[in-house]
Amino acid sequence: MGRWEPNARGRLANAALALYSERGFEQTTVAEIAKRAGLTERTFFRHYADKREVLFAGSSQLEEALVQAVAAVPRSAAPIDAVAVGLDTVAGFFTDRRDFARQRQAVIMANAELQERELIKLASMSAALADTLRRRGVAEPAASLTAEAGVSVFKVGFERWIGTAEEREMSQFLRESLDELKAALTGHQP
Amino acid sequence: MGRWEPNARGRLANAALALYSERGFEQTTVAEIAKRAGLTERTFFRHYADKREVLFAGSSQLEEALVQAVAAVPRSAAPIDAVAVGLDTVAGFFTDRRDFARQRQAVIMANAELQERELIKLASMSAALADTLRRRGVAEPAASLTAEAGVSVFKVGFERWIGTAEEREMSQFLRESLDELKAALTGHQP
Repeated sequence: MGRWEPNARGRLANAALALYSERGFEQTTVAEIAKRAGLTERTFFRHYADKREVLFAGSSQLEEALVQAVAAVPRSAAPIDAVAVGLDTVAGFFTDRRDFARQRQAVIMANAELQERELIKLASMSAALADTLRRRGVAEPAASLTAEAGVSVFKVGFERWIGTAEEREMSQFLRESLDELKAALTGHQP
Repeated sequence: MGRWEPNARGRLANAALALYSERGFEQTTVAEIAKRAGLTERTFFRHYADKREVLFAGSSQLEEALVQAVAAVPRSAAPIDAVAVGLDTVAGFFTDRRDFARQRQAVIMANAELQERELIKLASMSAALADTLRRRGVAEPAASLTAEAGVSVFKVGFERWIGTAEEREMSQFLRESLDELKAALTGHQP
């Protein structure tokens, strides 16, 4: 390891996102990211495998946190309620990160390859969640369908959260989206 | 146009799928597909842009049929009931096609690039469905959430249909999956 760089990982992520926004993802090099962050390329590669990973490293942490939170809910809870606890937990990751999340989303939407990667991450989250529910004793197809519902709520709630000027927390948007999904499927008002 | 070839499109699709199953998607050439079908490469390219399109041409037709069916349901129907009608319609596409669907799925699952393409097609189906619901006057986030639910039911129901030895039609699996999703979200038995 080289000398210690205070918050090198966060500085690299911010520098990368700023450059992707300014010039586009394709046009940005790792050398430029390191320079903007005031660090070396070597330091970059100690933290990220490549420039795409800067955008998706958080997704893996998110999936892990979601799965762990759902697994920790008492088994007496209904599967969808366990998923709701998981969504509440992951919403905490986004506190004070709305500008970052917005900028990241804009970069992803501008690049077909990154959009595909995002879809893969969401599919992976759904599969991991279904697996966690099955290990809680939930049968198929309920496990897969509940997991899909959880990821849909995450996706739609997230998009509403970054799309609004309101100051409410992401957890509120996720809870509202879950209530709206229940209402849409049952025909009752949320 | 060259001379008329009876059911050239279907013969090419069957030949392609057989070769993808035997040798893998990557290892199969358009020349080999045409030869297996007893047709020319020129005929292949009159029907398909490339060898990947053989697997995904049906997805576009499916999306169009789904959207048209949902749009045609009287506005008095609840959004999820309009989506259920759409799912019933697309299930009709799969009548007597289970072996083909199974083989196609195995080819896709064996190739990361094809899996990505499949995820993009499902995301496109969800977006088109949400758009159709909005044009029916459904507000957000209900439109996006109901569309996501419809695509989840399609995905999970389809996987159960190709995974079973039962002789029941795909429409029954889709209806059951929708009932299971409703039950999972509300905590009531289906």
